[in-house]
Amino acid sequence: MRVLGIDPGLTRCGVGVVDVEPNRTARLVDVVVLRSPAELDTPRRLARIADGLEAIFEEHRPHAVALERVFARSDVSTIMGTAQISGVAMLIAARRSLPVALHTPSEVKAAITGYGRADKAQVGAMVARILGLDAVPKPADAADALALAICHAWRTGGVAGAAVADAKAPLPEGTVLTPAQRAWHAAERSAAVSGAARRLKE
Amino acid sequence: MRVLGIDPGLTRCGVGVVDVEPNRTARLVDVVVLRSPAELDTPRRLARIADGLEAIFEEHRPHAVALERVFARSDVSTIMGTAQISGVAMLIAARRSLPVALHTPSEVKAAITGYGRADKAQVGAMVARILGLDAVPKPADAADALALAICHAWRTGGVAGAAVADAKAPLPEGTVLTPAQRAWHAAERSAAVSGAARRLKE
Repeated sequence: MRVLGIDPGLTRCGVGVVDVEPNRTARLVDVVVLRSPAELDTPRRLARIADGLEAIFEEHRPHAVALERVFARSDVSTIMGTAQISGVAMLIAARRSLPVALHTPSEVKAAITGYGRADKAQVGAMVARILGLDAVPKPADAADALALAICHAWRTGGVAGAAVADAKAPLPEGTVLTPAQRAWHAAERSAAVSGAARRLKE
Repeated sequence: MRVLGIDPGLTRCGVGVVDVEPNRTARLVDVVVLRSPAELDTPRRLARIADGLEAIFEEHRPHAVALERVFARSDVSTIMGTAQISGVAMLIAARRSLPVALHTPSEVKAAITGYGRADKAQVGAMVARILGLDAVPKPADAADALALAICHAWRTGGVAGAAVADAKAPLPEGTVLTPAQRAWHAAERSAAVSGAARRLKE
């Protein structure tokens, strides 16, 4: 399953493409940070990012798209640009009949590091380990986009267009894991347990 | 000058097209409210609205686009959809190399009724008078889109792509106005005066 993850932004838009096998092995296909100059007006900035996104969709032909779910933040000007880019990215995906899934930052952090409040450095380090990279992808938007793509594949069980399934179930017997994947899986299972415990208390 | 006004929304997106002469006479070209069913996911809803917008751009070939400037509101889910549609509308305009201007609701109300806090009924009634219509365009999204388009033409002095000029200057000698335009112009000038008085106090 090839997933394209997008960390939306008007100044920097992270785009990561990964191939994920049913056994959860993930391989880096491409990662890029699209930028638009602040001197341009917003419509031209959106078109600049849209052109870049379309080129990446065209080149890598993903099966699914994962986008960060945007919430209200203190800085209204930032959230508007982020929401506008999200809209443009969703339109591009819809016109290619691709499924689009939204994941919150804490869902991504929990899937990747096992801890929903992990910091950027922890997410970046785990992304590098999962993909077998020598260095953490920079800037953070690049690592975040890859994390989104991996999170999506893992949460859906590697089935494009699937509803987010129970990614916290035990792995099938005989699954061979890399050390990074073992670390992730142990972390995710403990997060699931503490999540279940939390739900019981509520 | 032909202006396309957009009152952005995911459930209802008002689109109004007007021709405005240098003497401020405005004529209705088309008005439509695009809708997308709530059962669809957001990407498909955005694509549905985008298809409708592109058909209207194609049919009426506007010289400029006026969009409502979106601010943070209490309902985050609404503002996200509105911002996403705005992004899609801006992208469509930018890809046609059309100038896009944003106007706040109070700027539109002030331009159309002379009063920045006018209610929907007052804006609708003035839009009908300005365009010489027998009835107020319904729903409110339709009237709002037309008000945006008229506001934009008037504020830019009818020059596509112009920066928002001083729309509050007196009209040239010999300009012939309809009663509605006279009413508007008197109201706008009094709003300008009170605006200037307010600025002096600040």
